[in-house]
Amino acid sequence: MIEVIFLGTGGIKPTPERNVPSIAIRIGSEIVLFDVGEGTLRQMEIAGLNPMRIKRIFITHFHGDHYLGLAAIIQTMNLWDRRETLHIYGPENSGEFISNFLKSGYFAPGFDVVVHEITGKARLQFENYEIWTFEVSHGIPALGYVFKEKDRRGNFDLEKIKSLGLTPGPWMKELEKRKIIKIGERVIRLSEVTGPKKRGAKVVYTGDTEPIDDIVEFSKRADLLIHEATYISSEHRKDSYHTTIEEAYEMFKSSKARHLALFHRAPRYSYQEYAVAAKELCPEAYVPRDFDRVFVGGMGNVIFKVR
Amino acid sequence: MIEVIFLGTGGIKPTPERNVPSIAIRIGSEIVLFDVGEGTLRQMEIAGLNPMRIKRIFITHFHGDHYLGLAAIIQTMNLWDRRETLHIYGPENSGEFISNFLKSGYFAPGFDVVVHEITGKARLQFENYEIWTFEVSHGIPALGYVFKEKDRRGNFDLEKIKSLGLTPGPWMKELEKRKIIKIGERVIRLSEVTGPKKRGAKVVYTGDTEPIDDIVEFSKRADLLIHEATYISSEHRKDSYHTTIEEAYEMFKSSKARHLALFHRAPRYSYQEYAVAAKELCPEAYVPRDFDRVFVGGMGNVIFKVR
Repeated sequence: MIEVIFLGTGGIKPTPERNVPSIAIRIGSEIVLFDVGEGTLRQMEIAGLNPMRIKRIFITHFHGDHYLGLAAIIQTMNLWDRRETLHIYGPENSGEFISNFLKSGYFAPGFDVVVHEITGKARLQFENYEIWTFEVSHGIPALGYVFKEKDRRGNFDLEKIKSLGLTPGPWMKELEKRKIIKIGERVIRLSEVTGPKKRGAKVVYTGDTEPIDDIVEFSKRADLLIHEATYISSEHRKDSYHTTIEEAYEMFKSSKARHLALFHRAPRYSYQEYAVAAKELCPEAYVPRDFDRVFVGGMGNVIFKVR
Repeated sequence: MIEVIFLGTGGIKPTPERNVPSIAIRIGSEIVLFDVGEGTLRQMEIAGLNPMRIKRIFITHFHGDHYLGLAAIIQTMNLWDRRETLHIYGPENSGEFISNFLKSGYFAPGFDVVVHEITGKARLQFENYEIWTFEVSHGIPALGYVFKEKDRRGNFDLEKIKSLGLTPGPWMKELEKRKIIKIGERVIRLSEVTGPKKRGAKVVYTGDTEPIDDIVEFSKRADLLIHEATYISSEHRKDSYHTTIEEAYEMFKSSKARHLALFHRAPRYSYQEYAVAAKELCPEAYVPRDFDRVFVGGMGNVIFKVR
């Protein structure tokens, strides 16, 4: 079970009602940030999220509304005597951009900030989750991200245990640790006595982009696809590298993801206006507001908790 | 009459209740910004202030809470096709810092951003106001600012007009324009037929600093002294370059300014806790909240309008 917290759901510039993009995923005690628009630190304060729990920040691209909140978060970590390395991931040039950003005032963090530049498709392995990346189409280097909670083993299955002539006991703890043990002459594998794997939650975040095939590809069997849908109509979008509600819906349907959240709506729309259009154009879509929380349990177990 | 709008009244880092420092002064149709902490753009949106009306921004110093909102404001001006030059004033190194800041992402403004570095005392003359600067003591280059609305001529005085043997008429418009005219053989000066000058409003903003003599000097006869008072007690302040409530009160009393606003309170204090302490330590002081507005008319005519 992971928790997705929408810290900023608008795009381009903030409005009184919504801030610019940032999405937090809480997994265990760790917070993973995707994009960090200006004011994200304060949004975290309001949401009751502690910036010190962030180990990694993933930035989709370097337009101001997606990264300008980075410096204040790093400075606040420093104020609180952070020593742990902070890892930041982003497309090419991220290193130079962040380095310039951190030279915009009097500031020297007392911990390492390591920037990882990613081009194309990558699979990053961490303790409890993986991040998969793909390039999107936004006119500048830009990435989409898949957050994949690691699958976990199934529960012990009493029937299977009995069928091997065993009875439950302390050997089960041992087996869990070593995955394979010997009882008498018999070799027992963990998979022999447990039920099916529990699939980890899968959440996809496109960042800003036109609709592209890779979104469909990477969103297969996702529990939640957070797709940018900056504009209600292509008339408003003109030739900008963004997506309309209808196009996001097409991507969602093709991907067979379980849920769709429409993200990064333009400042010109009120929530009401946008939500009404979304209801009409893609009835299943969810239009998050700032501070909404979504619990994603894998296997389609998704709970929307609107603030 | 000018209007002071408190856009962010906290210091160091934002809290759910208050944002980091920014103060707007509205004079005619122009907005003058003093400091521009992260999130100031959104605070302006909420306050109903149009960033396009900003001609000049004055930054006290380059700690993150005082300038990190600058890039988003410039980018939004650009989005709205600004062509007019934006002038930014700050202490030494401002040019390099702002230049780095604007190289932190994909961004090229379509208008000129001119940075003016100021050391020591300066008097800057603009159409409707002057800005006076003085150095404060904050461990890094830092400035305090005086905003001085220009004095305006007094009203026409009917008694004076009569005593010169004249009657009111279209010549008054002419005189107002030229300051000196001839009626028949007689030379008339504007000052001969008008009452005393109307003193322009004077507002002082210290930025972050220890108490220093120049604050008293520059705040003489000010209508409003906005003094940092980050800490309630010197025990909390320790040896940081900040001011306590009591010290700010001392500066205020010595300066004989008319009103004192205590600014930049630390995140550790709730509004309630801080306001109670302020009431006790300096009963006349005013503790602004974000979005409070103060109308300053000069001659002590100050109206506090709490949101």
